[in-house]
Amino acid sequence: MTGNFAYQKKRVEKLRELMDENRIDAFLVPTGPNFFYFTGFETESHERLTLMFITMDDQFILAPKLMEEQLHLHSWVEDVRPWTDEQNPHKMARDYLEKGNASLVAIDGLLPYFHYAPLFHNSSSKEILGDSYTMALRMVKDREELENISTAVRKSEEALKLTLDFVSDGVTEKAVAGKLQENFEKKGLDMPAFGSIVAAGENSSVPHHTPSDRKIARYEPIIIDFGGRYGGYASDTTRTFYIDRAKPDMEEIYEIDREAQETTIEALNPETTYADADRIAREVISRKGYGANFIHRLGHGLGISVHEDPYLVPDNKELMKENSVFTIEPGIYLPGRGGVRIEDTVYFQNGKCRPFNSFPKSINYI
Amino acid sequence: MTGNFAYQKKRVEKLRELMDENRIDAFLVPTGPNFFYFTGFETESHERLTLMFITMDDQFILAPKLMEEQLHLHSWVEDVRPWTDEQNPHKMARDYLEKGNASLVAIDGLLPYFHYAPLFHNSSSKEILGDSYTMALRMVKDREELENISTAVRKSEEALKLTLDFVSDGVTEKAVAGKLQENFEKKGLDMPAFGSIVAAGENSSVPHHTPSDRKIARYEPIIIDFGGRYGGYASDTTRTFYIDRAKPDMEEIYEIDREAQETTIEALNPETTYADADRIAREVISRKGYGANFIHRLGHGLGISVHEDPYLVPDNKELMKENSVFTIEPGIYLPGRGGVRIEDTVYFQNGKCRPFNSFPKSINYI
Repeated sequence: MTGNFAYQKKRVEKLRELMDENRIDAFLVPTGPNFFYFTGFETESHERLTLMFITMDDQFILAPKLMEEQLHLHSWVEDVRPWTDEQNPHKMARDYLEKGNASLVAIDGLLPYFHYAPLFHNSSSKEILGDSYTMALRMVKDREELENISTAVRKSEEALKLTLDFVSDGVTEKAVAGKLQENFEKKGLDMPAFGSIVAAGENSSVPHHTPSDRKIARYEPIIIDFGGRYGGYASDTTRTFYIDRAKPDMEEIYEIDREAQETTIEALNPETTYADADRIAREVISRKGYGANFIHRLGHGLGISVHEDPYLVPDNKELMKENSVFTIEPGIYLPGRGGVRIEDTVYFQNGKCRPFNSFPKSINYI
Repeated sequence: MTGNFAYQKKRVEKLRELMDENRIDAFLVPTGPNFFYFTGFETESHERLTLMFITMDDQFILAPKLMEEQLHLHSWVEDVRPWTDEQNPHKMARDYLEKGNASLVAIDGLLPYFHYAPLFHNSSSKEILGDSYTMALRMVKDREELENISTAVRKSEEALKLTLDFVSDGVTEKAVAGKLQENFEKKGLDMPAFGSIVAAGENSSVPHHTPSDRKIARYEPIIIDFGGRYGGYASDTTRTFYIDRAKPDMEEIYEIDREAQETTIEALNPETTYADADRIAREVISRKGYGANFIHRLGHGLGISVHEDPYLVPDNKELMKENSVFTIEPGIYLPGRGGVRIEDTVYFQNGKCRPFNSFPKSINYI
């Protein structure tokens, strides 16, 4: 076992408080983001049943024999119960639940049906979806998580700076995305959190554009939306650039978008909700006549997953939560002409919204 | 719609034969490998419900509005039923099943529990896991599939060759994995089929080791387990290398492992089962005293997924199937000291086992 895993242990204790309140006897967590969150062990999900069992007074991991050594090295959970190819892991799991008299079982939503069916068809226990509990926990970040996200953001901004030297008239969107990827690795970031978006000219009016062979030209908008991963945590940032200068209509929407983004960050306080954030940004843009061109939500939570709670959408009336982490990314898109998006990742702490980002938001000329 | 999708349509017809035999009224396929197999449309699975419905006389796709256009372009299924953010896609799906009087519904095993719960809790239909039917189809590859896998293997071996120039005393495991990734791209392979394993020294005794900052040194084993993707199909190969020479104990287990691998490939014929393959390799290794150090199955099927049927395990008593594709990858692991693994991807055709690989298996010095 490496490290003391104090944060991971505390997260399991907090889950137990929720289990107690909701009379949940057992919580089942397959490999994936929540498994990493509770055990410290990062692994892809695969077909061999690997399940963490959390009960009110115990925790253990049912895992294929070949993962046993790694689990002992990289997680704090001492009780690893290996299964071999001669055994039936689903039956083992059912036996554990029966012996423990688990009548209400919460299941992580990522459990695939091919594991669910042999585990729970004809089972006597009642099952519920556990995601609302785990997401409530994951939404409030602890110090270790804030530090990892902060490092991911800082290193990815450094990678962006290196990449800008490479952006010039005639270079393709794809080449810029490739160079960015290379610089992520140079800066010690793990696999990127998502495929970077590089969108030039009219492509910048499509929010989820995939980098293409289109060449970048002077004066047009270049949206770069990028993220890396550090210590298992994602970053997510967007900046919009122009070579030499921006055309007047694009400069106009840039300044409106920047005002919306900065006004929102400053306006947030313990009395505002995530819906308020979306409304405030939308009002700034609407007042200037571009309300119909801001065609997506204001932002999303960020952590182990690139998209997680809280979502900054009109129907999320929850008050800003201390140490929640989310993006603020208004955009204005003029179809066929071009667009702008400015995105910071922020955390809410001591009544204020604080960006992890330090890359300038004044209009960016290359 | 691009292409004629003749193979994809034939696969759906074959599924209907199985549905008919087993009185299945509806087959539900979420985005993922089977969705690609039946529709030709490759997309990651995501949180927004996207489901192909296959009944005895119809097929359609329930999909988020924003995927509608792409589905029309890249799949042959004409009936796409889009849902918007104001609608409840799970209720829509339940209504389709009720209207169609579907009493027995087969569900693709990859459907995550967070979709399963709102679709089927308290439903009146009986559900079964559909994977045995789809895997029976996918296990037998058609010509298009064999060609794609062959290309994926060939190009990934070329990428490995380029990478070996870079492997030397003092280079980290991570750097080798990064270079391999770069060379996959150079060779025109899509995103790798899985994260490459580069494991040096004592790390090579951990079958699923993740590349680390550990530096590679002379004489010690370096296991490289790698795969790329071509046309939606995966490759999977492992070779073990040594800089300059191998220490005697490591050379000994290398030669035993090679004998086990090659003996098995030659021994397979229409009368042998997948279990026999595992047994034959295990016998060679056990005879030399290392049976307890071969701690995983002999191999697994390969295709759209990196792990699929057939599995080469002691309880798979099925006879070798014509045009099935699988890996043969015995390994010997001495905890804390080091290990060896040699893996080819092979197809079974005209009574013989034929490797797609051509990279040498004689002991590999760099």
